[in-house]
Amino acid sequence: MTAVSDDRTIAEDDDLVRALAAPDDAEIAGLHAWWRANNYLTIGQIYLQANPLLREPLAPEHIKPRLLGHWGTSPGLSFIYAHVSRLIRRTGQRAVYLAGPGHGGPALVAAGYLEGTYSEIYPPVSQDEPGMLRLFRQFSAPGGIPSHVSVTTPGSIHEGGELGYVLVHAFGAVMDNPDLLAVTVVGDGEAETGPLEGSWKGISFLNPARDGAVLPVLHLNGAKIAGPTVLARKDPEEVRALLHGHGYQVIEVEGGDLPGMHQRFAAALAQAWGRIRAIQAAARGGSAGEDGSVGGGRPRWPLIVLRSPKGWTGPERVDGVQVTGTWRAHQVPLSGVRDNPDHLALLEEWLRSYRPEELFDSSGAPVPLIRDQAPAGELRMSAAPSANGGVLTRDLDLPDYRDYAVEVAAPARSRAESTRRLGELLRDVYARNPDTFRLFCPDETNSNRLGAVFETSDRAFMERVTDGDVAIGPDGRVMEVLSEHNCHGWLEGYTLTGRHGMFATYEAFAMVSASQTVQHGKWLQEAKNLDWRAKVPSLNILLTSTAWRNDHNGFSHQGPGLIQVVLTQRGDVARVYLPPDANTLLSVADHCLRSRSYVNLIVIDKQPQLQWLTMDEAVEHCARGAGIWEWAGTDDGSSDPDIVLACAGDVVTMETVAAAQILRERLSGLRVRVVNVVDLMTLIRPKDHPHGMSGTLFTELFTDTVDVVFAFHGYPGAIHQLVHGRPDADRFRVRGFIEQGTTTTPFDMTVRNRASRYHLVMDTINNARRLPRGATDLYAWCEAQLARHETYVVEHLEDMPEVRDWSLGDWAGRG
Amino acid sequence: MTAVSDDRTIAEDDDLVRALAAPDDAEIAGLHAWWRANNYLTIGQIYLQANPLLREPLAPEHIKPRLLGHWGTSPGLSFIYAHVSRLIRRTGQRAVYLAGPGHGGPALVAAGYLEGTYSEIYPPVSQDEPGMLRLFRQFSAPGGIPSHVSVTTPGSIHEGGELGYVLVHAFGAVMDNPDLLAVTVVGDGEAETGPLEGSWKGISFLNPARDGAVLPVLHLNGAKIAGPTVLARKDPEEVRALLHGHGYQVIEVEGGDLPGMHQRFAAALAQAWGRIRAIQAAARGGSAGEDGSVGGGRPRWPLIVLRSPKGWTGPERVDGVQVTGTWRAHQVPLSGVRDNPDHLALLEEWLRSYRPEELFDSSGAPVPLIRDQAPAGELRMSAAPSANGGVLTRDLDLPDYRDYAVEVAAPARSRAESTRRLGELLRDVYARNPDTFRLFCPDETNSNRLGAVFETSDRAFMERVTDGDVAIGPDGRVMEVLSEHNCHGWLEGYTLTGRHGMFATYEAFAMVSASQTVQHGKWLQEAKNLDWRAKVPSLNILLTSTAWRNDHNGFSHQGPGLIQVVLTQRGDVARVYLPPDANTLLSVADHCLRSRSYVNLIVIDKQPQLQWLTMDEAVEHCARGAGIWEWAGTDDGSSDPDIVLACAGDVVTMETVAAAQILRERLSGLRVRVVNVVDLMTLIRPKDHPHGMSGTLFTELFTDTVDVVFAFHGYPGAIHQLVHGRPDADRFRVRGFIEQGTTTTPFDMTVRNRASRYHLVMDTINNARRLPRGATDLYAWCEAQLARHETYVVEHLEDMPEVRDWSLGDWAGRG
Repeated sequence: MTAVSDDRTIAEDDDLVRALAAPDDAEIAGLHAWWRANNYLTIGQIYLQANPLLREPLAPEHIKPRLLGHWGTSPGLSFIYAHVSRLIRRTGQRAVYLAGPGHGGPALVAAGYLEGTYSEIYPPVSQDEPGMLRLFRQFSAPGGIPSHVSVTTPGSIHEGGELGYVLVHAFGAVMDNPDLLAVTVVGDGEAETGPLEGSWKGISFLNPARDGAVLPVLHLNGAKIAGPTVLARKDPEEVRALLHGHGYQVIEVEGGDLPGMHQRFAAALAQAWGRIRAIQAAARGGSAGEDGSVGGGRPRWPLIVLRSPKGWTGPERVDGVQVTGTWRAHQVPLSGVRDNPDHLALLEEWLRSYRPEELFDSSGAPVPLIRDQAPAGELRMSAAPSANGGVLTRDLDLPDYRDYAVEVAAPARSRAESTRRLGELLRDVYARNPDTFRLFCPDETNSNRLGAVFETSDRAFMERVTDGDVAIGPDGRVMEVLSEHNCHGWLEGYTLTGRHGMFATYEAFAMVSASQTVQHGKWLQEAKNLDWRAKVPSLNILLTSTAWRNDHNGFSHQGPGLIQVVLTQRGDVARVYLPPDANTLLSVADHCLRSRSYVNLIVIDKQPQLQWLTMDEAVEHCARGAGIWEWAGTDDGSSDPDIVLACAGDVVTMETVAAAQILRERLSGLRVRVVNVVDLMTLIRPKDHPHGMSGTLFTELFTDTVDVVFAFHGYPGAIHQLVHGRPDADRFRVRGFIEQGTTTTPFDMTVRNRASRYHLVMDTINNARRLPRGATDLYAWCEAQLARHETYVVEHLEDMPEVRDWSLGDWAGRG
Repeated sequence: MTAVSDDRTIAEDDDLVRALAAPDDAEIAGLHAWWRANNYLTIGQIYLQANPLLREPLAPEHIKPRLLGHWGTSPGLSFIYAHVSRLIRRTGQRAVYLAGPGHGGPALVAAGYLEGTYSEIYPPVSQDEPGMLRLFRQFSAPGGIPSHVSVTTPGSIHEGGELGYVLVHAFGAVMDNPDLLAVTVVGDGEAETGPLEGSWKGISFLNPARDGAVLPVLHLNGAKIAGPTVLARKDPEEVRALLHGHGYQVIEVEGGDLPGMHQRFAAALAQAWGRIRAIQAAARGGSAGEDGSVGGGRPRWPLIVLRSPKGWTGPERVDGVQVTGTWRAHQVPLSGVRDNPDHLALLEEWLRSYRPEELFDSSGAPVPLIRDQAPAGELRMSAAPSANGGVLTRDLDLPDYRDYAVEVAAPARSRAESTRRLGELLRDVYARNPDTFRLFCPDETNSNRLGAVFETSDRAFMERVTDGDVAIGPDGRVMEVLSEHNCHGWLEGYTLTGRHGMFATYEAFAMVSASQTVQHGKWLQEAKNLDWRAKVPSLNILLTSTAWRNDHNGFSHQGPGLIQVVLTQRGDVARVYLPPDANTLLSVADHCLRSRSYVNLIVIDKQPQLQWLTMDEAVEHCARGAGIWEWAGTDDGSSDPDIVLACAGDVVTMETVAAAQILRERLSGLRVRVVNVVDLMTLIRPKDHPHGMSGTLFTELFTDTVDVVFAFHGYPGAIHQLVHGRPDADRFRVRGFIEQGTTTTPFDMTVRNRASRYHLVMDTINNARRLPRGATDLYAWCEAQLARHETYVVEHLEDMPEVRDWSLGDWAGRG
């Protein structure tokens, strides 16, 4: 049971809540001044390229040539920010701020600037007139910063680009982070997305004893880009019911009146915070009250619904048309400022309405009243260490992965479920790292053979648990929810705040969250350009239940598309591993769990599969990333072979070695080299990827001229693009998944996709430099085998014994 | 205003509802017999390979060698199906059935079999003992059918593979389908996914006057694969609040008792149907009542929550452990049947509990009581024409797309927003096809310059509309919702039921629904194997706001990943078009709107862009798919050029022609050929794609040996994989989007990704076969231009005038 983060009593908390709920006039004046300053800086970013403090009358040449940015949501975001800052100052609460309406970027940048953080990180953007001008000019400008909250924004762990993930990021951030409060603004546009609607249920997995709290603020300002939103136009009673149904206590604040809104929002925030503290106190004190019970049900966490006008405090009407409160306030409410004197005058009036001369001193620095609104040091949300999670990251305490090795007396003699060994490793990772590692999986931990983790931890679940349930409850830390979006997003939030994890999922359905993989990859790529962003644990994705072994599921479950997606990322983040067996998987997993700021994709099936390498061999093989399996081939190395059989992926590796065996036994004299690739990125030229093998090494493996029959786990196009630019790349004949699938046997899948051992032998005969006698007969034999297969599988509903039970036995050249 | 679909009065409907709500004993006996038969066939499919009618005692050899399938959800699905069939028989209601818990495949297959549809479509699976045996053996077997509802299942428009889309498919199916009822079962596992949670709000866009109805049945059977679900374990009061908040009238049925459940479910279904009829009658009669108002708010549509045991009627306990009602019933409750005599006995007892001898006659055919439960002909849900929408598909009435042409006096002299012309075309498509065409777009129709459609149709919206709103209301048929999942899924449902449409979205965020694109592509691929499935209108996806012109949005908005995704689909469905200007776009769009059963991806930016081709030229260029732009090059065609500059995509086409101009002006004597590609698939070898150009044609365009500098809209790897296998493919030097992005100017984007005109010139100098004098100077000049750009853009916040305002002017070799 974690202790409460400070030593205030509940009674003292209650006093604090009462004080917070009723700000006095001085407090409101401070809040309001800070908000005015933020709004002023927001508008300045959108419009001004000179005259930042309005020391002279506004003139067309002070206006940027292109007006880009988003005003509409900004004042709401800064309003909330101001109030949360006050809460932090009064209570010492650690908090991060996640802005779902990401296009309120200028408001969050302005917040960091007013708090001093921005200038600490970007010294040229100093708290004076020249710095303010830089602040304005960099916004939505070449070489500058985007109009949404991004990696460059201090205090952010949430890119305001693709909408839908703000709550999953928040929930991930507070898991195992008991002292942290994630204030999470959900825009009513974003609230229409599927991923967002699917993420309210995070509280069903959040344990107040051990995790921090998410305070969602559903900001209904009524409109998105071009029209009204569903939630803004629903009867408020329905909105309340919906959020109550999701499990929240709904606190509503509505209006545009001032200072009334300051008073009402302060009261709402105080109420919410008081309730969070009560829930946590009850849970952490071990007493199971109505709010804080961790055994008998999920607490009813607070949530604020804020209804405020879109473009609040901006120009009410422009050219006779209502702007504030409508979608017209979304971007730039006055668009013709450079050419239209009326618009210019309106803009000046608008800017001066905030009375900048009261907010910034003669040097351009915020006046003391503004500075005083900021919490101290790391309590400033723009400086929160959790929002730069790399600074908090500790290495995992990892067991020696060699201890989980499968015994391999000789290659391809015995079978094992490779992921089961990984599950045992992960079990012990859980045990050694009780608050810095989690596994995320859509209901398939056992199915994926990772169930050993349940020896250490249950599934997390805050809803009702019944007698028959197994390995599930509030104390669990294995995250199972039937939503790839939740799993992926939680892991992102967890790693961005400095902790480690893995997302394990069915290969085909990894495409559900492919867009999140892309966006997180972009975050990591962008972060590498920023010295101040410390590296965070990698996003580890394990794909099991692959295209080749989805026996009873069929075509919709067969799709290795995520490999293609990860290949589009830059070399400084993207990693794809295809370990062929348990020992290589263990080595790869260990490497990934130690790594930082990558997207690591690991693909391996969960079914019993042949084991190839001893642990020592696996370690060496993985260190190289690709290598010749001499024992599998008939190539003596004295000169180029007649054919190279290459493979990447477990099932196709088996087919490749089986093909090599057939060739050895039936086409004596043919020199066959077998190459296995674990680290797919080794194939790329080194100038395009740091793992890319040198030209020399590439030639050592693949020669410069011999044809390569390459059996690949994924779509053949992936290999085509990877080897482009390598010597005579046309000689790579790739077999892989070509969208031929159905409910069928494992071997039949390789036949349908023309990647079976017989197809590989026929490819060899078609492409080898030199063919011993007997090749024509062997080709015909392969065709006959395939014909036999066709009839056998339909008759017997299973594979022919010689392929079903195939192993190398005593055949191999070693052992 | 559409009329109600039959001429019953509301009073007659009321009588019907009362009768439906109280089935007499004979009706219940019939319902129950059909359900028993269905359950028997379901279990037979999972277990039996012989002895289908249990004519002899069950023996191990009657059991399949591999037991695959899903029992848990099946009895619930067939229970609902039986009751809806009764509703149809009594009312003549047209209905389709969508099974969200897709792994209840055997129940839906059994339903089609009992209704006779299955045998009509697959004659060998006849309604007799041999047919029943085939039914059993084909299930989850090689060459057979999958264990989930799939394309092969009669009556299905929803693949039960990837979860989350059942409601979006249902809503799409009933749009402009006033007589159709989509009974839509949502499993509590699926209900945890983001896309499903985001799809309840379909009723906010459904107009009862013009659209049909969706009746969701939320089936809470308590568990998914390995544990409980959130909704099943929430307080029922919360579930009610949640669904009420989504806007539904919640009708609950709970239990496992029989015949009580038959009576209660019949009453619930009657109540729901009565309410739907009342809503529709009110809306269609033009009277705005509480339930049917189309002006004053959304009707409160009914929804049934069904709580029944998982694995209902199956073995209660196995090996001393509770199975029914738990996750253990999810797949195969008795797994050791072949080896474990106790399990075998239990299975026999279970099968015989349905008294098959009463259900099937001596030939093995369903007895008359069972047959009588099926509605007649096309009213059988397994035979619903809407579930084989190709049979209902009519060609669109399309205007002549040439009428929307942009005047092009000469290439690259004038600019236009190309998508604006498409918007005008779509406006008239709307007008000519008032109930068979819709545009789906996440809130960006205007932003994407397609706003002309609003001259014909508003946005659809059933929530409150206020005075300031523009082009939005219940009569609207343009579908805007800030959810790619909804847009994509609605369009799928709309096209699978035989109507036409287009999904227009931001390029980067098309990845949000990439998995739907993949799954729908798989549906179309699979459907092509089935003669009885008529071709449906294509899934047309228009990507605008592309990576190259997301000026103020930045890196998170820059990603051409969907091209990679579509390239993984088979050639018989995948199409990718990159029209460079308005006239080519119009030609491509016309082609796509006429096509069937493809995934058509069209990529073009929305910003003002240079126009290249007259309409006549565009038509010819699009017909070829790729061609030489002789006027842009300096290649006289007499022999191979020194370099080929190829391009695909609007922005890179501009850079390519600009590069050709620089080369012409500054490197006299160099023979440059310019090739533009509109239809990306022409690059593939014809054996891999029907659009693939012949080797001869490929050589005519690209030669066999000359280096090709290829400027591509998307990731370079796409071209690498497409040209693999073409003569000397290594000579293709591809420039494209290499994940270099930020908020910056349009030209700076091409510089950062090394695809600017200057980079293309430098690439030419590096790779041309033959270089005239002056190449070194030109290379240095390009470097100097790039250096100038660097300083200019930071200083002026915009591009250098010579690139910003670049056009060919009078330069071009023609016009």
